Order: sequence, then structure tokens, then C-alpha cells
Amino acid sequence: MIVAVCLNPASDVTYGVADLDPHSSHRVLSVQRRAGGKGVNVARVLHQLGIPSMVIGLAPAGGERSIAADLAGDGIDGRFADVAGVLRQSVAVVDPGGATVFNEPGPVVTPAEWADFLELFDLSVIGADVVVLSGSVPRSLGADAYATLVRRAHAAGARTVIDAEGPVLEQALPVGPSVAKPNRDEAAGFLGRPVTGVEDAHEAARRVIAAGAGAAIISLGEQGMVARTGDRGYTVTVPEILSGNPTGAGDALAAVVALGLANNEPWPQLLRNGAAVSAAAVVMPLAGEFDPTTADHLRPQIRIEES
Amino acid sequence: MIVAVCLNPASDVTYGVADLDPHSSHRVLSVQRRAGGKGVNVARVLHQLGIPSMVIGLAPAGGERSIAADLAGDGIDGRFADVAGVLRQSVAVVDPGGATVFNEPGPVVTPAEWADFLELFDLSVIGADVVVLSGSVPRSLGADAYATLVRRAHAAGARTVIDAEGPVLEQALPVGPSVAKPNRDEAAGFLGRPVTGVEDAHEAARRVIAAGAGAAIISLGEQGMVARTGDRGYTVTVPEILSGNPTGAGDALAAVVALGLANNEPWPQLLRNGAAVSAAAVVMPLAGEFDPTTADHLRPQIRIEES
Repeated sequence: MIVAVCLNPASDVTYGVADLDPHSSHRVLSVQRRAGGKGVNVARVLHQLGIPSMVIGLAPAGGERSIAADLAGDGIDGRFADVAGVLRQSVAVVDPGGATVFNEPGPVVTPAEWADFLELFDLSVIGADVVVLSGSVPRSLGADAYATLVRRAHAAGARTVIDAEGPVLEQALPVGPSVAKPNRDEAAGFLGRPVTGVEDAHEAARRVIAAGAGAAIISLGEQGMVARTGDRGYTVTVPEILSGNPTGAGDALAAVVALGLANNEPWPQLLRNGAAVSAAAVVMPLAGEFDPTTADHLRPQIRIEES
Repeated sequence: MIVAVCLNPASDVTYGVADLDPHSSHRVLSVQRRAGGKGVNVARVLHQLGIPSMVIGLAPAGGERSIAADLAGDGIDGRFADVAGVLRQSVAVVDPGGATVFNEPGPVVTPAEWADFLELFDLSVIGADVVVLSGSVPRSLGADAYATLVRRAHAAGARTVIDAEGPVLEQALPVGPSVAKPNRDEAAGFLGRPVTGVEDAHEAARRVIAAGAGAAIISLGEQGMVARTGDRGYTVTVPEILSGNPTGAGDALAAVVALGLANNEPWPQLLRNGAAVSAAAVVMPLAGEFDPTTADHLRPQIRIEES
């Protein structure tokens, strides 16, 4: 069982418009809504892979946009501790030039609501193989939120994958998450300087491990990714550059990394599958999905150099 | 009693952002939500004026964004025939350069839902003095929607104010609404050519009356408005130009026109009050509100020339 954590889920709203023209009125031509958030996307990919999983988090319980009911409709087991208010929206306005996104802030979480979530967390991770901590944390929670969850997951015997940035990542690393998976920008934020290439990404991975992670994967978009465990390094290259929507590619990678950990896969196998599924997520318009045909086509072509 | 009709209400969502940058991601700094739509704004202004009124329309019944519950919280009596789906949103993204608005389409209204609304309408207009028909009509309803409602309101003994445009306005005029209140652009749409000045606005008003309206008011923004009854014309000038949010100024005017009809006010008095309250709506950030101090200050300064 893999448990994905989504502390700051959203209703992902996609508006199709003819042409975005600032400071004017637009007729919205198409409207799509579905439950989103990085942890939710991880659970969607695991569901598509046929892996037993659930997603847990904090969300308003009632209303027409109940996230658990929405996810149940997609066959996904979602359990959320109640918070006051309305589920936040993330509105993507799509025109021929691309997507313009407006992310509402998350809820103000009270100490009692956080205590309710921790109870849900502790119950959910009993017997879990891997816990994935993905995405932003409502600002009303402290920067130690993921540190707390890594500690409690390990106490329950689960391994952890963390996909986060900033102080939340920095405070979690000393607790020793099994794998930290920042992308290039997030790694740069951690280093305090740009990550300038593959060798530099290896250096970033070493620094993430030095800070406490068991292993580190730095994703580099079209340039693939690098990974390091305590003693080995891997440089992963995807031969084909696919165009599409990169949102959700990192979530697909986090899902496959969690699966690899749960199955005790050798690192080259885990990375090959992760790179293939992640690239196959780019070709799908919605985050949380991947194209299995593309993944199967890419998998044997992924190049992995050990160093 | 004044009944405002709002066939296509919305949840008005206002996002504050630092700077709108097309094709990038934005952190939303502030979120405001409230029930909106032109008929709802009319009811809000009548409520602020202390006039017995209600707003009726078509809207999804349930969910956290129930419009009737939202309006009740603001002291407004709203009654809505149920339609399937989620209440549409109108999202205004406000940055220092102004507002960028995204209007979701209205619901697809089934014949059974429309029949339910007509039943609500007939019950609501019993004993009503004036019925105000404001704003857009869901595209799934025919262009005769307002024509039908004017006919039924008159059959119940009420007078009518119509604030609409396009085919919906054109089909309603032959039924003889008591007052039609297009703005300059809507009048231009009706004429099939631009409305170029005050004299031309009088010509537009004559044409609206020739098509069937009992009286016509053409609002001209900062240039005031013109009005015509069967035999007289009025040119209304506001001495001060106020800056602010013009959205909702027309709804304030419709509310005051309905009030004037209900009270059988002389036209100069009705127009003076309408111009003052409408201008006093511009200084308020939210549509459906006006500043009473500004209205009191402007009222004696409004110039009305009879012709």
C-alpha cells in the first residue's frame, strides 16, 4: 500500500478561451473541473498503474465540490480531515498561447484540524510500504509539517518520498526521508544558486543527501534526471523530447519512485520506469495521467549511466 | 413589491494578483466570492434603498455555493428554480492595470426546469408592482424568454423594466415592456449602427419606443443619459465625473427606475434619482452597491432638460 499525502488539494478548473486579452472580459468556451493537487495526481498515477494506494489530506468536507466524492467517482480512495471553508481553486485559463494559472491560497488550518489530520495520518500509514509527501503546505501550518510526517511515517515502519521545496523541504531532510525528489528549480532554491547542468545536478543531489535524505533524484525536464544513493550516481537521459503539458510529470515520477521503493526494485529499473512514465505524462493534457503506450515505447530507449 | 429576475446568476469571484502576466502562474493574494448577476445586483440596490423586493431566477439548488443561502446572508429574498449542475462562476482577476474577467457559460436549462421557473415567476409576480428583467439569458433558452416574461407580468397587472440586448431585447419590445433601458452599446446593437451623441441617443430611444416599449432610457456612461416617453424627451447630465467601477451602474439605474414606476414618480424625479444612484454606484468597488452620501451630494446637481 502506498499512501499519498495532499495537504493543500484544489479543485482544478480549466477554462478554454479564444484569446487571453488582459483587462477585458472573456467568454469562457469550455469548463472542466476535477480534484487536483500534487498528492492527488500521485494517487491518480498509482491508480492508473493498478497499485493499491490512497490519498489523504486536509479539505473541506461538504459541498458540491467534495474532493473525496469527486475522487471516488474516478475510483480513487481519498480520505480528508475536515477544514473550514471552501475547497480552494486552481484556475487555468488556456488559450492558443498556453496556460495562465491562478492558484488560490490554501485554508487556514486550526491546531484542532491539524490534530485530526495527524490521527488520520497515523491510522492510514499502519502497514503502508511507502508514504509520498507532495506539494505545497497551507501557509498556516508550520514549515515543520513534512518533518513531522516523515518522522511519524518512519515510526510506523514506512519509507518516504518527499517532493517539496523551500523551508518545508529543508526542515524535513534532517529527519531522513528515504528519497527526496526536487526538480531543478527546487534544487536551486535549496542550494541558493542555479543548477547549471548534469554535473551540477549531481552536486545538488550530494548536498540533499548530506542534509539527511537517503537518496536524491533531481529532475531536469527535457534533459532527463540524475539520481544518487549513498554510494552511487545515475544520469538518466530520455532520447525523445515530447511536447505537451509538463504539469504532473513530476507527480508521475514520484508515484513510480514510491512504487519502486515498495517493490525493492534496483535503482536502474526504478529510474528507467520513472523516466518513461514521467515523459509519458507530458503527452497527456491533464496532470495525473500518463499514456501507457508512450511509456512502453520509451522504456527500452531510456539511457542510464552509472557513475 | 418589486421582483427582479435573474435567469443567469453567477458566483462572482474576485482574485487579487500582483500583476497579470499571460501564460504564467499567479499566486492569488485575496479571494472574494458572492452571488452576482445583473438581476441580483438590482435586488441588492433595492435592498440598500429599503424597498420590499425579491430576486427570482434559475440556479442549482444545492451545494456550498447555494445562491439563495448566500443572498439570505445579505438580507435579500432570493428564490430560484433548480437547474442541474454547478452555479456558474464569473472570475475577475484584478491587478493594478484593471480587471480581467472570465464568464462561464450558463446552464443548459431543460423544458421541465423552465416550466418550474415559470410557475415560480407566476406565483412571485402576484401583487408585484414592477418586474425587472435584467441581463443575459442562458443560451439554451430561446430568444423569446423575456417576451414570455413581459407578457406574463403584464397579465398579472405588473409593469416591467427590461435591461437586455440582442435578440432577447428585440423579441421582448413588441410585447410592450413599460420601460426599456439599454446602454449606448446595447442601443447600437439594436439600431445596427453606433450611437454617436445625445441627439442620436434620442433617436435610438424613439426607435425603441416605436418597436413597442412604453418608454426608453439610453444610458451614456459619463455623458449621462437620455429618456423618452411617448410624447416627451429628457436629457440628463451628471456634473461630476466619478472614477471607479462602472459595472453595476446600469443595475442601480434599473433598480431606481423600477422604484420610480412603482411609486408613480414624475419622470424628472425618477431620472434625477436614477442618475444620482447610478453615479454613486460607480464609486463602490462591488456591483450592487452605491454610496448614499455620494448620491445625496449629486442629486441636486443633476441637470435635466426637457425637449
